[in-house]
Amino acid sequence: MVRWEPDSRSRLLQAAMVLYGEQGFDRTTVAEIAERAGLTERTFFRHFTDKREVLFYGAQALQDLLVTTVVNAPASTTPIEAVTRALEAAGEMFGARREFSVQRQRIIDDSSELRERELIKLATLATALADALRQRGVTDPTAGLIGEVAIAIFKNAFERWVSTSEASDLGHMVREALEQVRDATAAP
Amino acid sequence: MVRWEPDSRSRLLQAAMVLYGEQGFDRTTVAEIAERAGLTERTFFRHFTDKREVLFYGAQALQDLLVTTVVNAPASTTPIEAVTRALEAAGEMFGARREFSVQRQRIIDDSSELRERELIKLATLATALADALRQRGVTDPTAGLIGEVAIAIFKNAFERWVSTSEASDLGHMVREALEQVRDATAAP
Repeated sequence: MVRWEPDSRSRLLQAAMVLYGEQGFDRTTVAEIAERAGLTERTFFRHFTDKREVLFYGAQALQDLLVTTVVNAPASTTPIEAVTRALEAAGEMFGARREFSVQRQRIIDDSSELRERELIKLATLATALADALRQRGVTDPTAGLIGEVAIAIFKNAFERWVSTSEASDLGHMVREALEQVRDATAAP
Repeated sequence: MVRWEPDSRSRLLQAAMVLYGEQGFDRTTVAEIAERAGLTERTFFRHFTDKREVLFYGAQALQDLLVTTVVNAPASTTPIEAVTRALEAAGEMFGARREFSVQRQRIIDDSSELRERELIKLATLATALADALRQRGVTDPTAGLIGEVAIAIFKNAFERWVSTSEASDLGHMVREALEQVRDATAAP
């Protein structure tokens, strides 16, 4: 029989974050995470495929938010504006859990395995954004290019956001980064 | 005693490409590559750290070419122009071995492990380009952003280049992609 485990996912997540922070990602096992959360390994694997996925459990929600925002933007919205609004919406999502984001980034930066996983997730987001633009009738190569450029902008803004000490606004940093790309690529 | 093995690197490379094409990357072993090349596994490992690296052996030369071109561009050259010239130079490098590039991309697209490795190599190139721009006095976040956007442009142009049937010019496609990014990000 399966016991009812209230909020076991968030208990596992919290336990993992503490252990990754204390002893490093590489040296932490699933057994230790489960024990710290007062749960079984079996429960862990009902929620996460492996110990890396604990750090990326929000990736699907992020992708859904980006895609939905792009697809549902008014028809008159330009492709880059639709994508920028999606990134601003993502900025609000991360803004609501800034402390977690900062701590998570520190763990990822410390592990080449996690940095690789993050690059893969970002590439997936670029593809999803490009597909959302195609749904709006944007043709290639523009759709693919905007997807890639949008992720470049988000990555850069996010890196700055987690490394600034004062409370800053990720959405605002996204908008700034877009303006910098615009200025940098402008015809001489 | 080490026997003199003329051009063993290129024999290993050719053998690997044939085997990866015939039976897939995943199912090919280093032992098979060495045997097909008429060499020993030990010789293989003198040239490549693993069977993935056979497909990325040119990465350092590519990075050196990009960095050198950016650093040595005339002082009056804008950052995005310096980077675009570097990508055009890379385009010439790839253009000289188009058939290899097409075949290599097919092998990479077939393997998630290789697609991941490629993402890591591209991220390394973005960082190297940003560092080269900083050497020219470009400040952040612009340097970091241009590095990322440049790689987005190159990736997109390269994908189109290897999938067009007629002989097209990669450098020209890079220039086109830059113009598309410029148009897409222009203020409304």
